[in-house]
Amino acid sequence: MFGAVIHAPGDVRYEERAEPTIEQPTDAVIRTVAACVCGSDLWRYRGISEVQEPTPIGHEYVGIVEKVGDAVTTVKPGDFVVGGFTHSCGRCATCRKGATCNCENGGGYAGCQAEMIRIPNADGTLVVVPGPVDDDLIPSLLALSDVMCTGWHGAVSARVQPGSSVVVVGDGAVGLCAVLAAATMGASTVIALSRHADRQAVAHEFGATHIVAERGDDGIARVKELTDGIGADCVIECVGTQDARLTAVHACRKGGDIGLLGIPHGDLPLGQLFWDNKGIKGGPAHVRAYLPALLDLVLARTINPGRVFDLELPLSEIAEAYAAMDERRAIKSLVRP
Amino acid sequence: MFGAVIHAPGDVRYEERAEPTIEQPTDAVIRTVAACVCGSDLWRYRGISEVQEPTPIGHEYVGIVEKVGDAVTTVKPGDFVVGGFTHSCGRCATCRKGATCNCENGGGYAGCQAEMIRIPNADGTLVVVPGPVDDDLIPSLLALSDVMCTGWHGAVSARVQPGSSVVVVGDGAVGLCAVLAAATMGASTVIALSRHADRQAVAHEFGATHIVAERGDDGIARVKELTDGIGADCVIECVGTQDARLTAVHACRKGGDIGLLGIPHGDLPLGQLFWDNKGIKGGPAHVRAYLPALLDLVLARTINPGRVFDLELPLSEIAEAYAAMDERRAIKSLVRP
Repeated sequence: MFGAVIHAPGDVRYEERAEPTIEQPTDAVIRTVAACVCGSDLWRYRGISEVQEPTPIGHEYVGIVEKVGDAVTTVKPGDFVVGGFTHSCGRCATCRKGATCNCENGGGYAGCQAEMIRIPNADGTLVVVPGPVDDDLIPSLLALSDVMCTGWHGAVSARVQPGSSVVVVGDGAVGLCAVLAAATMGASTVIALSRHADRQAVAHEFGATHIVAERGDDGIARVKELTDGIGADCVIECVGTQDARLTAVHACRKGGDIGLLGIPHGDLPLGQLFWDNKGIKGGPAHVRAYLPALLDLVLARTINPGRVFDLELPLSEIAEAYAAMDERRAIKSLVRP
Repeated sequence: MFGAVIHAPGDVRYEERAEPTIEQPTDAVIRTVAACVCGSDLWRYRGISEVQEPTPIGHEYVGIVEKVGDAVTTVKPGDFVVGGFTHSCGRCATCRKGATCNCENGGGYAGCQAEMIRIPNADGTLVVVPGPVDDDLIPSLLALSDVMCTGWHGAVSARVQPGSSVVVVGDGAVGLCAVLAAATMGASTVIALSRHADRQAVAHEFGATHIVAERGDDGIARVKELTDGIGADCVIECVGTQDARLTAVHACRKGGDIGLLGIPHGDLPLGQLFWDNKGIKGGPAHVRAYLPALLDLVLARTINPGRVFDLELPLSEIAEAYAAMDERRAIKSLVRP
């Protein structure tokens, strides 16, 4: 079979790779229906993270189950499935608490931008989408594999409630999904920080009540104008840079909460957070815990997170899928074998 | 009138001070019924914080209203009142969000270990206790002025829910009140870290299901034994030292929450908190926001936070009230004029 392999910064190739097999009785192997490129894949593409050797890449997928191991009971060949960007056993004490991304027995995949994927811990990882699956829903189902559940995780972490005021820092696919999550949870004010017209349009579709294009102190001043002068109840930080993290801190009112989704680069002013009673929580999303409820919303066409995909290519053109995101010609690229 | 004045580390004196007056139309002046010594008062007593000049001290009180300014409408002379360790206006956008300790117009008092106290922002600060007030309830009413509401704030910050497992780090008055808060909120497991028999006894009375006397790695190992091997859902940190803060981080399960009450000394491992999805939130407590509900629980004799006072002295013996706490002969000292 063929799949994506990253060789070096800027160098992702469509190559023949060994076909995955059932290695453990808890494995499934799926035939990919759609996969996509994640902002975090760009770290290696951009040389921010190291590429030590040619490595299969990708961690988001929907597909059809091809084979299952002897111990797998909840999915069977032919099922249309979606799973999170990490696999999880579903049985350990941490999974039972709903913190599936921190599963004691979990981990990653050997590259999901591929025609076939081995899914360890299939029972604890995959959710069956009841068929037949409408083709136009595939982008939204794929978005559940990471970005939509990640945006949701940010809103949960930031304690978004009906009536909350929410600021979302970052207008990538995760930031846009955080807007959708906050609006879906009933936030009354949802402020998207965005300077790009195409992303602003998606933010509005997803329920943003206000767009703030200004950055730095001007952006904070604008947020305060929209929040009784004090900042938002909840802020969802979807970038991770020091600037974005400090923007999140300053956009949050005293006593409020900051959901952290961006991989942390740089520090936070812990003393100030304490005296201002601002909370921080976040990390990699518990996709498997959120999947069933969000799948229902997608199937009911209540939410349409697949809207973040504005480029669709054959898997064989994976190099262009990366380049378009890297050069900001696309918000997020979907690929199909 | 007379009151406590700190002159230098270890030197708190009972001295004649100017009688407080109505300075602003929103002020009240109360005649103190009881006051007490806070763990945070000991910073100056122990020389950890500087004493630049003789300074009136104390920030916890219950009393009878003596006079009110022209603008005060919710309390009147003769009312028995309790207020928080900071005053708050009750009208600003931050107060309206319930973050009263971060009030835009709030602040401290000019020393509450005194026969009389000026209360700025009386309407936004004081809560009337419906009379007649049983004398045996006075310690619990006084505890609402700080430690009980602070323990409650830790539990709220750590997202304690019915059924939660909770660890409390620190067995001072605030830690003990955090145990009481967690148990009152319906936590099913409440683990108090304590090595002192007298404090262990109060923790048990307050609803601790387990006491862990071990410290460091042994203490963490014991907590994990009691929490399915993963740590507690919620940890309330009531000390503030680097050791205590790291104990809190390690006692918390992945995906859990840490409520911070101890004044922060030292750093936290932000990267680890992110990858483990552990949240932190806390700071000075929003006493005024919590007061009405907790007052009801005290008046119904559902909670008895006054149990933390194990020494009662005349205000004139304030020096001994400090010395007993400093030397750990008392958990917390109550003084009456």
